Amino acid sequence: MTRILYTLSGSDHERPFSPHSWKVVMALAHKGLDFIEKPTAFTAIPALENGLSKTVPILRDGEKLVSDSFDIALYLEQTYPDRATLFGGEGGQALSRFIERFSQSIVHPAVTAIAVSDIHDMLADEDQRYFRSSREALLGRTLEEMRTGREIAIAAFAPKLEPLRQMLKYQPFIGGEGPLFADYILFGALQWMRITAGADVFKPGDPVSSWFERCLDLHQGLGRRVTAA
Amino acid sequence: MTRILYTLSGSDHERPFSPHSWKVVMALAHKGLDFIEKPTAFTAIPALENGLSKTVPILRDGEKLVSDSFDIALYLEQTYPDRATLFGGEGGQALSRFIERFSQSIVHPAVTAIAVSDIHDMLADEDQRYFRSSREALLGRTLEEMRTGREIAIAAFAPKLEPLRQMLKYQPFIGGEGPLFADYILFGALQWMRITAGADVFKPGDPVSSWFERCLDLHQGLGRRVTAA
Repeated sequence: MTRILYTLSGSDHERPFSPHSWKVVMALAHKGLDFIEKPTAFTAIPALENGLSKTVPILRDGEKLVSDSFDIALYLEQTYPDRATLFGGEGGQALSRFIERFSQSIVHPAVTAIAVSDIHDMLADEDQRYFRSSREALLGRTLEEMRTGREIAIAAFAPKLEPLRQMLKYQPFIGGEGPLFADYILFGALQWMRITAGADVFKPGDPVSSWFERCLDLHQGLGRRVTAA
Repeated sequence: MTRILYTLSGSDHERPFSPHSWKVVMALAHKGLDFIEKPTAFTAIPALENGLSKTVPILRDGEKLVSDSFDIALYLEQTYPDRATLFGGEGGQALSRFIERFSQSIVHPAVTAIAVSDIHDMLADEDQRYFRSSREALLGRTLEEMRTGREIAIAAFAPKLEPLRQMLKYQPFIGGEGPLFADYILFGALQWMRITAGADVFKPGDPVSSWFERCLDLHQGLGRRVTAA
């Protein structure tokens, strides 16, 4: 059975950067499931698997197709219950949705403010046109204007992760002693920034930085194999 | 066996308002455990149970004494495993710590900015003196200065709960289909504000407001019995 994960990349297919795809890459590794990764350009996504989804990740697991990172995690947990758990029970599954929405509403805009022009520069020409028009419409600013605010956005980044920073006084991972999907959710956001912008957002000794480094070490350094910008 | 929960109140003992105590009141009701609540003034707390803790809640469960709301929840889950679960498994327990630190680092300062002068006004004279000096030192402002910023703090409040608002598109409680301790953590913060400031922080139809009303209805309207300011 072939397991294929479609992810997102710019012109360099060796450096896939989508935060949502990284959540699933880590989830598959967590469960010890082999897969072939197919990094895909923005404008090629709508044609994947007969137009299943406008966004990646998309997982093909034999005959089964699943899109959306959270839905894929739910699918993996249900389909491979004997492998390491991604949620640690029903409560963990429910609370992971809160972590996802924290990441989406607070961390993702903060990464976008730093990295959006860097992401643009990683793309092939056709994707750059799509990316510029869609992102500028969404943000209400040009990529050049976003670039101007980059240093301010970098300075504003670390405080937004204060809940995680305080939590790390109690336990090494959001999942407790070891990582769960909740960790991969926030890891995905920071990995996205690491690969696209490589911005130095944490002060030395910040516990959030130490946690991120621990996540980069997981699964034989899977996250670390893709170099930072 | 007598189960006693020491909570916090001002001069009116019918209106205990501590967010941490409300977490435990709800947790005890969730597990169907009877208890006698003893609302206590700020300055009387250090003398409780031979100086066990400087803060409430303190739970006496027969011979056992436990302080700190999260530790009490852990104790109840471990001691009464056959009652309704507060965490929904190990993952839920670990992730609840993130919710706690989100509440503590983002929601509590936002409530304080609105309610601190109202809380002062609910206290007896001796407690007012303690409260004023300790809070003004902590905040770096007088209570009167805090009062001046109250309307701005009210306007700034609702956006801080955006992760919860987005999450409520997927499920009615942080715990999923029903509440878990994670819900009581954020409920405690909003109940604290409801009882002390009664500020109208949500627009009509805000899903966060609907969730809070659902929490007020839980356990035979336990939270609703204490009137809003």
